[in-house]
Amino acid sequence: MTKEQPIGFIDSGVGGLTVVKEAMKQLPNEHILYLGDTARCPYGPRPAEQVIEYTFEMANFLMEQHIKMLVIACNTATAVALEAIRAALPIPVVGVILPGARAAVKATKTQQVGIIGTIGTVKSQSYYQALKAKQQEITVTSLACPKFVPIVESNQFQTAVAKKIVAQTLQPLVHKQLDTLILGCTHYPLLRPLIQNMMGDGVTLIDSGAETVSEVSVLLDYFQLANPNPLKKRAIFYTTGSTALFDEIATQWLPITRAQSKKIHLGGTTNEI
Amino acid sequence: MTKEQPIGFIDSGVGGLTVVKEAMKQLPNEHILYLGDTARCPYGPRPAEQVIEYTFEMANFLMEQHIKMLVIACNTATAVALEAIRAALPIPVVGVILPGARAAVKATKTQQVGIIGTIGTVKSQSYYQALKAKQQEITVTSLACPKFVPIVESNQFQTAVAKKIVAQTLQPLVHKQLDTLILGCTHYPLLRPLIQNMMGDGVTLIDSGAETVSEVSVLLDYFQLANPNPLKKRAIFYTTGSTALFDEIATQWLPITRAQSKKIHLGGTTNEI
Repeated sequence: MTKEQPIGFIDSGVGGLTVVKEAMKQLPNEHILYLGDTARCPYGPRPAEQVIEYTFEMANFLMEQHIKMLVIACNTATAVALEAIRAALPIPVVGVILPGARAAVKATKTQQVGIIGTIGTVKSQSYYQALKAKQQEITVTSLACPKFVPIVESNQFQTAVAKKIVAQTLQPLVHKQLDTLILGCTHYPLLRPLIQNMMGDGVTLIDSGAETVSEVSVLLDYFQLANPNPLKKRAIFYTTGSTALFDEIATQWLPITRAQSKKIHLGGTTNEI
Repeated sequence: MTKEQPIGFIDSGVGGLTVVKEAMKQLPNEHILYLGDTARCPYGPRPAEQVIEYTFEMANFLMEQHIKMLVIACNTATAVALEAIRAALPIPVVGVILPGARAAVKATKTQQVGIIGTIGTVKSQSYYQALKAKQQEITVTSLACPKFVPIVESNQFQTAVAKKIVAQTLQPLVHKQLDTLILGCTHYPLLRPLIQNMMGDGVTLIDSGAETVSEVSVLLDYFQLANPNPLKKRAIFYTTGSTALFDEIATQWLPITRAQSKKIHLGGTTNEI
Protein backbone atom coordinates (compact mmCIF):
# COMPACT_ATOMS: atom_id res chain seq x y z
CA MET A 1 0.00 0.00 0.00
CA THR A 2 1.10 3.56 -0.64
CA LYS A 3 0.30 6.75 1.20
CA GLU A 4 -1.19 8.27 -1.96
CA GLN A 5 -4.03 5.74 -2.23
CA PRO A 6 -7.55 6.93 -1.36
CA ILE A 7 -9.60 6.18 1.75
CA GLY A 8 -12.95 4.53 1.05
CA PHE A 9 -16.21 5.52 2.77
CA ILE A 10 -19.40 3.46 2.42
CA ASP A 11 -22.96 4.05 3.56
CA SER A 12 -26.48 2.97 2.74
CA GLY A 13 -27.00 6.44 1.20
CA VAL A 14 -25.98 10.03 1.91
CA GLY A 15 -25.54 9.66 5.69
CA GLY A 16 -21.85 8.86 5.48
CA LEU A 17 -21.29 12.32 4.01
CA THR A 18 -21.45 13.60 7.59
CA VAL A 19 -18.29 11.58 8.24
CA VAL A 20 -16.72 12.77 4.96
CA LYS A 21 -17.34 16.36 6.04
CA GLU A 22 -15.17 15.76 9.11
CA ALA A 23 -12.54 13.97 7.02
CA MET A 24 -12.31 16.96 4.68
CA LYS A 25 -11.64 19.17 7.70
CA GLN A 26 -9.24 16.97 9.68
CA LEU A 27 -7.46 15.16 6.84
CA PRO A 28 -7.01 17.69 4.04
CA ASN A 29 -4.31 15.60 2.33
CA GLU A 30 -6.41 12.48 1.94
CA HIS A 31 -8.12 11.46 -1.26
CA ILE A 32 -11.68 10.25 -0.61
CA LEU A 33 -13.79 7.71 -2.48
CA TYR A 34 -17.41 7.62 -1.33
CA LEU A 35 -20.04 5.07 -2.20
CA GLY A 36 -23.69 5.49 -1.13
CA ASP A 37 -25.98 2.55 -1.85
CA THR A 38 -28.94 4.90 -2.26
CA ALA A 39 -30.88 2.50 -4.50
CA ARG A 40 -31.17 -0.02 -1.66
CA CYS A 41 -31.48 2.51 1.20
CA PRO A 42 -32.60 2.24 4.00
CA TYR A 43 -30.56 -0.63 5.43
CA GLY A 44 -32.08 -0.23 8.90
CA PRO A 45 -35.12 -2.50 8.49
CA ARG A 46 -33.30 -5.20 6.45
CA PRO A 47 -32.24 -8.57 7.91
CA ALA A 48 -28.62 -8.74 9.11
CA GLU A 49 -27.59 -11.27 6.43
CA GLN A 50 -28.71 -8.92 3.68
CA VAL A 51 -26.92 -5.92 5.22
CA ILE A 52 -23.73 -8.00 5.42
CA GLU A 53 -24.10 -9.01 1.76
CA TYR A 54 -24.65 -5.43 0.60
CA THR A 55 -21.79 -4.12 2.72
CA PHE A 56 -19.42 -6.64 1.17
CA GLU A 57 -20.55 -5.56 -2.30
CA MET A 58 -19.77 -1.94 -1.46
CA ALA A 59 -16.41 -2.83 0.13
CA ASN A 60 -15.43 -4.96 -2.85
CA PHE A 61 -16.28 -2.18 -5.31
CA LEU A 62 -13.97 0.24 -3.46
CA MET A 63 -11.24 -2.39 -3.03
CA GLU A 64 -11.14 -2.54 -6.85
CA GLN A 65 -10.38 1.20 -6.76
CA HIS A 66 -7.35 0.44 -4.56
CA ILE A 67 -8.30 2.10 -1.29
CA LYS A 68 -5.77 1.94 1.57
CA MET A 69 -8.37 2.06 4.36
CA LEU A 70 -12.14 1.52 4.58
CA VAL A 71 -14.57 3.48 6.76
CA ILE A 72 -17.97 1.86 7.23
CA ALA A 73 -19.71 5.21 7.66
CA CYS A 74 -23.05 3.55 8.42
CA ASN A 75 -24.11 2.42 11.89
CA THR A 76 -26.40 -0.36 10.65
CA ALA A 77 -23.63 -1.88 8.53
CA THR A 78 -21.05 -1.40 11.29
CA ALA A 79 -23.29 -3.14 13.82
CA VAL A 80 -23.66 -6.33 11.81
CA ALA A 81 -20.81 -6.42 9.28
CA LEU A 82 -17.69 -4.76 10.77
CA GLU A 83 -16.08 -7.90 12.17
CA ALA A 84 -16.63 -9.94 8.99
CA ILE A 85 -15.36 -7.16 6.71
CA ARG A 86 -12.33 -6.56 8.91
CA ALA A 87 -11.48 -10.25 8.87
CA ALA A 88 -11.84 -10.44 5.09
CA LEU A 89 -10.00 -7.30 3.96
CA PRO A 90 -6.20 -6.82 3.89
CA ILE A 91 -6.52 -3.12 4.85
CA PRO A 92 -7.52 -1.38 8.11
CA VAL A 93 -11.31 -1.13 8.49
CA VAL A 94 -12.98 1.43 10.77
CA GLY A 95 -16.60 1.49 11.93
CA VAL A 96 -18.65 4.26 13.54
CA ILE A 97 -19.98 2.58 16.70
CA LEU A 98 -16.87 2.37 18.88
CA PRO A 99 -15.94 5.99 18.11
CA GLY A 100 -19.48 7.05 19.06
CA ALA A 101 -19.30 5.10 22.32
CA ARG A 102 -15.86 6.56 23.07
CA ALA A 103 -17.14 10.11 22.54
CA ALA A 104 -20.17 9.47 24.77
CA VAL A 105 -18.01 8.11 27.61
CA LYS A 106 -15.90 11.26 27.37
CA ALA A 107 -18.93 13.58 27.29
CA THR A 108 -21.30 12.20 29.92
CA LYS A 109 -21.15 13.44 33.48
CA THR A 110 -24.29 11.80 34.86
CA GLN A 111 -23.72 8.44 33.11
CA GLN A 112 -27.23 8.71 31.61
CA VAL A 113 -26.74 8.11 27.90
CA GLY A 114 -29.33 7.77 25.16
CA ILE A 115 -28.92 6.24 21.70
CA ILE A 116 -31.08 6.81 18.66
CA GLY A 117 -30.56 4.70 15.54
CA THR A 118 -32.18 2.50 12.94
CA ILE A 119 -34.13 -0.61 13.88
CA GLY A 120 -31.13 -2.75 12.86
CA THR A 121 -28.65 -0.78 14.95
CA VAL A 122 -30.85 -0.72 18.06
CA LYS A 123 -31.70 -4.43 17.71
CA SER A 124 -28.00 -5.36 17.46
CA GLN A 125 -27.37 -3.81 20.91
CA SER A 126 -23.91 -2.84 19.62
CA TYR A 127 -23.92 0.56 21.31
CA TYR A 128 -25.22 -0.89 24.55
CA GLN A 129 -22.41 -3.45 24.61
CA ALA A 130 -19.72 -0.95 23.59
CA LEU A 131 -20.80 1.56 26.24
CA LYS A 132 -21.10 -1.02 29.00
CA ALA A 133 -17.70 -2.49 28.14
CA LYS A 134 -16.12 0.96 28.45
CA GLN A 135 -17.95 2.25 31.51
CA GLN A 136 -20.14 -0.19 33.41
CA GLU A 137 -21.87 2.57 35.38
CA ILE A 138 -23.54 4.02 32.30
CA THR A 139 -27.33 3.62 32.01
CA VAL A 140 -28.32 3.21 28.38
CA THR A 141 -31.69 4.17 26.85
CA SER A 142 -32.18 3.17 23.21
CA LEU A 143 -34.81 4.29 20.70
CA ALA A 144 -35.23 3.26 17.06
CA CYS A 145 -36.19 6.12 14.73
CA PRO A 146 -37.07 4.40 11.43
CA LYS A 147 -38.62 7.53 9.92
CA PHE A 148 -35.45 9.66 10.07
CA VAL A 149 -33.38 8.14 7.24
CA PRO A 150 -36.11 8.51 4.58
CA ILE A 151 -36.54 12.20 5.51
CA VAL A 152 -32.84 12.82 4.96
CA GLU A 153 -32.53 10.77 1.77
CA SER A 154 -35.46 12.64 0.22
CA ASN A 155 -33.80 15.98 1.09
CA GLN A 156 -36.65 16.98 3.40
CA PHE A 157 -34.49 17.35 6.49
CA GLN A 158 -35.09 21.11 6.80
CA THR A 159 -38.89 21.02 6.39
CA ALA A 160 -41.85 21.36 8.75
CA VAL A 161 -42.62 17.69 8.15
CA ALA A 162 -39.16 16.79 9.47
CA LYS A 163 -39.71 18.94 12.55
CA LYS A 164 -42.99 17.20 13.32
CA ILE A 165 -41.61 13.69 12.84
CA VAL A 166 -38.54 14.43 15.00
CA ALA A 167 -40.75 15.85 17.77
CA GLN A 168 -43.13 12.88 17.74
CA THR A 169 -40.39 10.27 17.55
CA LEU A 170 -38.20 11.67 20.34
CA GLN A 171 -41.10 12.26 22.75
CA PRO A 172 -40.31 9.09 24.78
CA LEU A 173 -36.75 10.36 25.46
CA VAL A 174 -37.51 13.89 26.59
CA HIS A 175 -38.10 13.11 30.27
CA LYS A 176 -35.42 10.42 30.63
CA GLN A 177 -32.91 12.81 32.30
CA LEU A 178 -30.24 12.06 29.67
CA ASP A 179 -27.18 14.30 29.57
CA THR A 180 -25.80 12.75 26.38
CA LEU A 181 -27.53 11.44 23.25
CA ILE A 182 -25.66 9.47 20.60
CA LEU A 183 -26.80 10.16 17.04
CA GLY A 184 -26.35 6.48 16.24
CA CYS A 185 -26.91 6.83 12.51
CA THR A 186 -24.74 8.88 10.18
CA HIS A 187 -27.86 10.41 8.59
CA TYR A 188 -28.97 12.03 11.84
CA PRO A 189 -26.48 14.93 12.03
CA LEU A 190 -28.43 16.49 9.15
CA LEU A 191 -31.40 16.63 11.56
CA ARG A 192 -29.22 17.93 14.37
CA PRO A 193 -30.88 21.36 14.87
CA LEU A 194 -34.31 19.71 15.15
CA ILE A 195 -33.04 17.01 17.51
CA GLN A 196 -31.22 19.54 19.72
CA ASN A 197 -34.31 21.72 19.86
CA MET A 198 -36.44 18.77 20.97
CA MET A 199 -33.97 17.43 23.55
CA GLY A 200 -32.97 20.83 24.97
CA ASP A 201 -29.60 22.52 25.33
CA GLY A 202 -28.69 20.46 28.40
CA VAL A 203 -28.24 17.33 26.30
CA THR A 204 -24.92 16.85 24.48
CA LEU A 205 -25.48 15.33 21.04
CA ILE A 206 -22.74 12.96 19.92
CA ASP A 207 -22.11 12.87 16.19
CA SER A 208 -19.74 9.96 15.79
CA GLY A 209 -18.33 11.47 12.58
CA ALA A 210 -15.69 13.63 14.27
CA GLU A 211 -14.57 10.83 16.54
CA THR A 212 -14.53 8.31 13.67
CA VAL A 213 -12.23 10.57 11.68
CA SER A 214 -9.97 10.86 14.74
CA GLU A 215 -9.76 7.06 14.69
CA VAL A 216 -8.95 7.12 10.98
CA SER A 217 -6.23 9.68 11.67
CA VAL A 218 -4.76 7.58 14.50
CA LEU A 219 -4.62 4.48 12.32
CA LEU A 220 -3.19 6.36 9.32
CA ASP A 221 -0.39 7.61 11.56
CA TYR A 222 0.07 4.30 13.37
CA PHE A 223 0.36 2.31 10.17
CA GLN A 224 2.33 5.11 8.47
CA LEU A 225 -0.30 5.50 5.76
CA ALA A 226 -1.02 9.25 6.03
CA ASN A 227 -0.53 11.16 2.79
CA PRO A 228 1.99 13.97 3.46
CA ASN A 229 1.15 15.97 0.33
CA PRO A 230 -1.84 18.22 -0.36
CA LEU A 231 -4.26 17.16 -3.06
CA LYS A 232 -5.86 18.88 -6.02
CA LYS A 233 -8.87 16.60 -6.44
CA ARG A 234 -10.27 15.72 -3.03
CA ALA A 235 -13.19 13.35 -3.51
CA ILE A 236 -15.03 11.09 -5.94
CA PHE A 237 -18.63 10.14 -5.19
CA TYR A 238 -20.46 7.01 -6.36
CA THR A 239 -24.14 6.26 -5.83
CA THR A 240 -26.36 3.38 -6.84
CA GLY A 241 -29.39 5.71 -6.96
CA SER A 242 -30.26 9.16 -8.30
CA THR A 243 -27.15 11.21 -8.97
CA ALA A 244 -29.22 14.41 -9.06
CA LEU A 245 -30.59 13.93 -5.53
CA PHE A 246 -27.20 12.76 -4.23
CA ASP A 247 -25.41 15.78 -5.71
CA GLU A 248 -27.99 18.16 -4.30
CA ILE A 249 -27.52 16.90 -0.74
CA ALA A 250 -23.72 16.53 -1.03
CA THR A 251 -23.32 20.07 -2.37
CA GLN A 252 -25.43 21.49 0.48
CA TRP A 253 -23.61 19.55 3.15
CA LEU A 254 -19.94 19.53 2.11
CA PRO A 255 -17.44 22.39 1.65
CA ILE A 256 -17.29 21.85 -2.13
CA THR A 257 -18.59 23.93 -5.01
CA ARG A 258 -20.54 21.19 -6.71
CA ALA A 259 -20.63 17.41 -6.19
CA GLN A 260 -20.84 15.33 -9.36
CA SER A 261 -21.49 11.74 -8.44
CA LYS A 262 -21.18 8.77 -10.74
CA LYS A 263 -23.87 6.13 -10.87
CA ILE A 264 -22.84 2.51 -10.42
CA HIS A 265 -24.69 -0.77 -10.11
CA LEU A 266 -24.14 -3.21 -7.27
CA GLY A 267 -25.32 -6.78 -6.90
CA GLY A 268 -23.56 -9.19 -9.22
CA THR A 269 -21.81 -6.65 -11.43
CA THR A 270 -19.89 -3.53 -10.52
CA ASN A 271 -19.95 -2.00 -14.01
CA GLU A 272 -20.54 1.68 -14.22
CA ILE A 273 -23.73 2.62 -16.03
CA MET B 1 -1.06 -10.44 25.73
CA THR B 2 -4.23 -10.35 27.78
CA LYS B 3 -6.80 -7.62 28.21
CA GLU B 4 -6.20 -7.56 31.98
CA GLN B 5 -2.57 -6.43 31.71
CA PRO B 6 -1.76 -2.82 32.68
CA ILE B 7 -0.95 0.11 30.40
CA GLY B 8 2.41 1.73 31.09
CA PHE B 9 2.97 5.50 31.19
CA ILE B 10 6.45 7.02 31.35
CA ASP B 11 7.64 10.59 31.80
CA SER B 12 10.71 12.49 32.92
CA GLY B 13 8.78 13.34 36.11
CA VAL B 14 5.23 14.22 37.13
CA GLY B 15 4.14 15.72 33.79
CA GLY B 16 2.74 12.46 32.44
CA LEU B 17 0.20 12.52 35.27
CA THR B 18 -1.77 14.98 33.12
CA VAL B 19 -2.17 12.14 30.62
CA VAL B 20 -3.00 9.66 33.40
CA LYS B 21 -5.74 11.99 34.60
CA GLU B 22 -7.41 11.71 31.20
CA ALA B 23 -6.89 7.94 31.14
CA MET B 24 -8.64 7.63 34.51
CA LYS B 25 -11.61 9.47 33.06
CA GLN B 26 -11.85 7.88 29.61
CA LEU B 27 -10.60 4.35 30.40
CA PRO B 28 -12.00 3.46 33.84
CA ASN B 29 -11.39 -0.27 33.30
CA GLU B 30 -7.68 0.02 32.60
CA HIS B 31 -4.98 -0.71 35.13
CA ILE B 32 -2.23 1.93 35.04
CA LEU B 33 1.48 1.68 35.81
CA TYR B 34 3.23 5.04 35.93
CA LEU B 35 6.94 5.71 36.06
CA GLY B 36 8.35 9.21 36.50
CA ASP B 37 12.12 9.56 36.23
CA THR B 38 12.09 12.47 38.65
CA ALA B 39 15.70 11.93 39.76
CA ARG B 40 16.94 12.74 36.25
CA CYS B 41 14.33 15.38 35.38
CA PRO B 42 14.33 17.61 33.34
CA TYR B 43 14.98 15.74 30.08
CA GLY B 44 14.51 18.88 27.95
CA PRO B 45 18.09 20.19 28.00
CA ARG B 46 19.75 16.75 27.67
CA PRO B 47 21.32 15.48 24.44
CA ALA B 48 19.05 13.25 22.32
CA GLU B 49 21.24 10.13 22.84
CA GLN B 50 20.86 10.43 26.59
CA VAL B 51 17.09 10.92 26.41
CA ILE B 52 16.84 7.81 24.22
CA GLU B 53 18.92 5.82 26.72
CA TYR B 54 16.82 6.95 29.70
CA THR B 55 13.57 6.30 27.84
CA PHE B 56 14.65 2.74 27.05
CA GLU B 57 15.47 2.21 30.73
CA MET B 58 11.99 3.35 31.73
CA ALA B 59 10.31 1.27 29.00
CA ASN B 60 12.29 -1.82 29.98
CA PHE B 61 11.35 -1.44 33.64
CA LEU B 62 7.64 -1.38 32.76
CA MET B 63 8.01 -4.21 30.23
CA GLU B 64 9.20 -6.35 33.15
CA GLN B 65 5.88 -5.54 34.83
CA HIS B 66 4.08 -7.01 31.79
CA ILE B 67 2.37 -3.95 30.33
CA LYS B 68 0.22 -4.48 27.20
CA MET B 69 0.76 -0.98 25.80
CA LEU B 70 3.23 1.86 26.46
CA VAL B 71 2.44 5.57 26.45
CA ILE B 72 5.45 7.86 26.23
CA ALA B 73 3.72 10.64 28.16
CA CYS B 74 6.65 13.01 27.67
CA ASN B 75 7.10 15.23 24.63
CA THR B 76 10.89 15.35 24.83
CA ALA B 77 11.14 11.55 24.91
CA THR B 78 8.50 11.18 22.19
CA ALA B 79 10.35 13.60 19.93
CA VAL B 80 13.61 11.69 19.98
CA ALA B 81 12.84 8.12 21.10
CA LEU B 82 9.35 7.10 19.87
CA GLU B 83 10.45 5.45 16.63
CA ALA B 84 13.29 3.48 18.26
CA ILE B 85 11.12 2.32 21.18
CA ARG B 86 8.28 1.35 18.84
CA ALA B 87 10.66 -0.66 16.68
CA ALA B 88 12.14 -2.44 19.71
CA LEU B 89 9.02 -3.31 21.71
CA PRO B 90 6.54 -6.10 20.90
CA ILE B 91 3.57 -4.03 22.16
CA PRO B 92 1.83 -0.92 20.75
CA VAL B 93 3.65 2.29 21.70
CA VAL B 94 1.94 5.70 21.71
CA GLY B 95 3.58 9.12 21.88
CA VAL B 96 2.12 12.55 22.65
CA ILE B 97 3.22 14.61 19.64
CA LEU B 98 1.00 13.26 16.87
CA PRO B 99 -2.10 13.45 19.09
CA GLY B 100 -1.22 17.06 19.94
CA ALA B 101 -0.77 17.91 16.27
CA ARG B 102 -4.04 16.18 15.40
CA ALA B 103 -5.92 18.17 18.06
CA ALA B 104 -4.38 21.44 16.84
CA VAL B 105 -5.39 20.77 13.22
CA LYS B 106 -8.94 20.15 14.44
CA ALA B 107 -9.01 23.28 16.60
CA THR B 108 -7.38 25.99 14.48
CA LYS B 109 -9.49 28.18 12.24
CA THR B 110 -6.87 30.74 11.21
CA GLN B 111 -4.06 28.16 10.68
CA GLN B 112 -1.85 30.19 13.05
CA VAL B 113 -0.57 27.66 15.56
CA GLY B 114 1.97 28.10 18.34
CA ILE B 115 3.94 25.44 20.19
CA ILE B 116 5.61 25.72 23.56
CA GLY B 117 7.86 22.94 24.79
CA THR B 118 11.24 22.04 26.19
CA ILE B 119 14.47 22.90 24.40
CA GLY B 120 14.74 19.29 23.21
CA THR B 121 11.20 19.18 21.84
CA VAL B 122 11.46 22.51 20.04
CA LYS B 123 14.90 21.64 18.63
CA SER B 124 13.63 18.32 17.26
CA GLN B 125 11.06 20.19 15.11
CA SER B 126 8.76 17.20 15.63
CA TYR B 127 5.62 19.32 16.05
CA TYR B 128 6.52 21.48 13.09
CA GLN B 129 6.90 18.44 10.88
CA ALA B 130 3.76 16.72 12.20
CA LEU B 131 1.64 19.85 11.71
CA LYS B 132 2.99 20.59 8.25
CA ALA B 133 2.47 16.99 7.16
CA LYS B 134 -1.17 17.17 8.25
CA GLN B 135 -2.05 20.65 7.01
CA GLN B 136 0.49 22.45 4.85
CA GLU B 137 -1.25 25.82 5.25
CA ILE B 138 -0.51 26.02 8.97
CA THR B 139 2.00 28.63 10.10
CA VAL B 140 3.95 27.37 13.10
CA THR B 141 5.56 29.52 15.80
CA SER B 142 7.69 27.64 18.35
CA LEU B 143 9.05 28.76 21.71
CA ALA B 144 11.16 26.82 24.20
CA CYS B 145 10.18 27.38 27.85
CA PRO B 146 12.99 25.72 29.86
CA LYS B 147 11.87 27.26 33.16
CA PHE B 148 8.41 25.66 33.21
CA VAL B 149 9.26 22.03 34.08
CA PRO B 150 11.29 22.89 37.20
CA ILE B 151 8.40 25.04 38.50
CA VAL B 152 6.01 22.12 38.17
CA GLU B 153 8.37 19.47 39.55
CA SER B 154 9.02 21.60 42.64
CA ASN B 155 5.25 21.97 43.20
CA GLN B 156 5.39 25.73 42.71
CA PHE B 157 2.97 25.81 39.79
CA GLN B 158 0.31 27.80 41.68
CA THR B 159 2.62 30.48 43.08
CA ALA B 160 3.33 34.13 42.25
CA VAL B 161 6.78 33.08 41.05
CA ALA B 162 5.15 30.77 38.51
CA LYS B 163 2.87 33.58 37.32
CA LYS B 164 5.83 35.90 36.78
CA ILE B 165 7.91 33.32 34.92
CA VAL B 166 5.00 32.34 32.67
CA ALA B 167 4.31 35.98 31.85
CA GLN B 168 7.95 36.75 31.05
CA THR B 169 8.49 33.59 29.02
CA LEU B 170 5.36 33.87 26.87
CA GLN B 171 5.80 37.58 26.11
CA PRO B 172 7.21 36.88 22.59
CA LEU B 173 4.03 34.95 21.65
CA VAL B 174 1.39 37.40 22.82
CA HIS B 175 1.23 39.48 19.64
CA LYS B 176 1.70 36.64 17.16
CA GLN B 177 -2.05 36.42 16.31
CA LEU B 178 -2.19 32.72 17.24
CA ASP B 179 -5.61 31.12 17.59
CA THR B 180 -4.22 27.82 18.93
CA LEU B 181 -1.32 27.05 21.25
CA ILE B 182 -0.07 23.51 21.80
CA LEU B 183 1.10 22.79 25.34
CA GLY B 184 3.93 20.69 23.91
CA CYS B 185 5.08 19.30 27.25
CA THR B 186 2.96 17.16 29.55
CA HIS B 187 4.00 19.28 32.53
CA TYR B 188 2.41 22.43 31.11
CA PRO B 189 -1.29 21.64 31.75
CA LEU B 190 -0.54 22.21 35.43
CA LEU B 191 0.31 25.81 34.46
CA ARG B 192 -2.76 26.06 32.25
CA PRO B 193 -4.62 28.84 34.12
CA LEU B 194 -1.50 31.03 34.05
CA ILE B 195 -0.84 30.31 30.38
CA GLN B 196 -4.46 30.97 29.41
CA ASN B 197 -4.45 34.22 31.34
CA MET B 198 -1.32 35.39 29.55
CA MET B 199 -2.43 34.33 26.05
CA GLY B 200 -6.05 35.53 26.38
CA ASP B 201 -9.34 33.74 25.97
CA GLY B 202 -9.17 33.89 22.18
CA VAL B 203 -6.38 31.31 22.09
CA THR B 204 -7.33 27.63 22.32
CA LEU B 205 -4.83 25.72 24.44
CA ILE B 206 -4.19 22.16 23.29
CA ASP B 207 -3.38 19.70 26.05
CA SER B 208 -2.33 16.60 24.15
CA GLY B 209 -3.34 14.38 27.10
CA ALA B 210 -6.99 14.01 26.11
CA GLU B 211 -6.13 13.33 22.49
CA THR B 212 -3.36 10.90 23.46
CA VAL B 213 -5.81 8.90 25.55
CA SER B 214 -8.21 8.86 22.58
CA GLU B 215 -5.37 7.30 20.58
CA VAL B 216 -4.78 4.76 23.33
CA SER B 217 -8.50 3.95 23.31
CA VAL B 218 -8.53 3.53 19.52
CA LEU B 219 -5.56 1.16 19.60
CA LEU B 220 -6.94 -0.82 22.57
CA ASP B 221 -10.14 -1.37 20.59
CA TYR B 222 -8.38 -1.96 17.28
CA PHE B 223 -6.04 -4.60 18.71
CA GLN B 224 -8.82 -5.98 20.95
CA LEU B 225 -6.83 -5.21 24.10
CA ALA B 226 -9.42 -3.17 26.05
CA ASN B 227 -10.21 -4.56 29.49
CA PRO B 228 -13.98 -5.13 29.67
CA ASN B 229 -14.15 -5.40 33.46
CA PRO B 230 -14.01 -2.63 36.09
CA LEU B 231 -11.02 -2.57 38.41
CA LYS B 232 -10.57 -2.23 42.13
CA LYS B 233 -6.96 -0.98 42.17
CA ARG B 234 -6.53 1.58 39.39
CA ALA B 235 -2.91 2.71 39.42
CA ILE B 236 0.59 2.05 40.73
CA PHE B 237 3.12 4.87 40.69
CA TYR B 238 6.91 4.55 40.53
CA THR B 239 9.40 7.39 40.80
CA THR B 240 13.17 7.55 40.75
CA GLY B 241 13.10 10.66 42.95
CA SER B 242 11.34 11.88 46.08
CA THR B 243 8.20 9.86 46.78
CA ALA B 244 6.92 12.57 49.13
CA LEU B 245 7.01 15.29 46.47
CA PHE B 246 5.64 12.94 43.82
CA ASP B 247 2.74 11.87 46.05
CA GLU B 248 1.92 15.45 46.94
CA ILE B 249 1.58 16.50 43.28
CA ALA B 250 -0.19 13.29 42.21
CA THR B 251 -2.75 13.54 45.02
CA GLN B 252 -3.49 17.16 44.11
CA TRP B 253 -3.82 16.47 40.43
CA LEU B 254 -5.56 13.08 40.15
CA PRO B 255 -9.03 11.95 41.28
CA ILE B 256 -7.58 9.66 43.95
CA THR B 257 -7.60 9.89 47.73
CA ARG B 258 -3.88 9.52 48.23
CA ALA B 259 -1.07 8.52 45.88
CA GLN B 260 1.60 6.27 47.38
CA SER B 261 4.46 5.96 44.96
CA LYS B 262 7.27 3.43 45.15
CA LYS B 263 10.86 4.51 44.68
CA ILE B 264 12.93 2.63 42.11
CA HIS B 265 16.41 3.05 40.71
CA LEU B 266 17.15 3.23 37.00
CA GLY B 267 20.47 3.04 35.18
CA GLY B 268 22.08 -0.38 35.20
CA THR B 269 19.78 -2.06 37.70
CA THR B 270 16.02 -1.96 37.95
CA ASN B 271 15.80 -3.31 41.49
CA GLU B 272 13.30 -1.69 43.74
CA ILE B 273 14.84 0.08 46.68
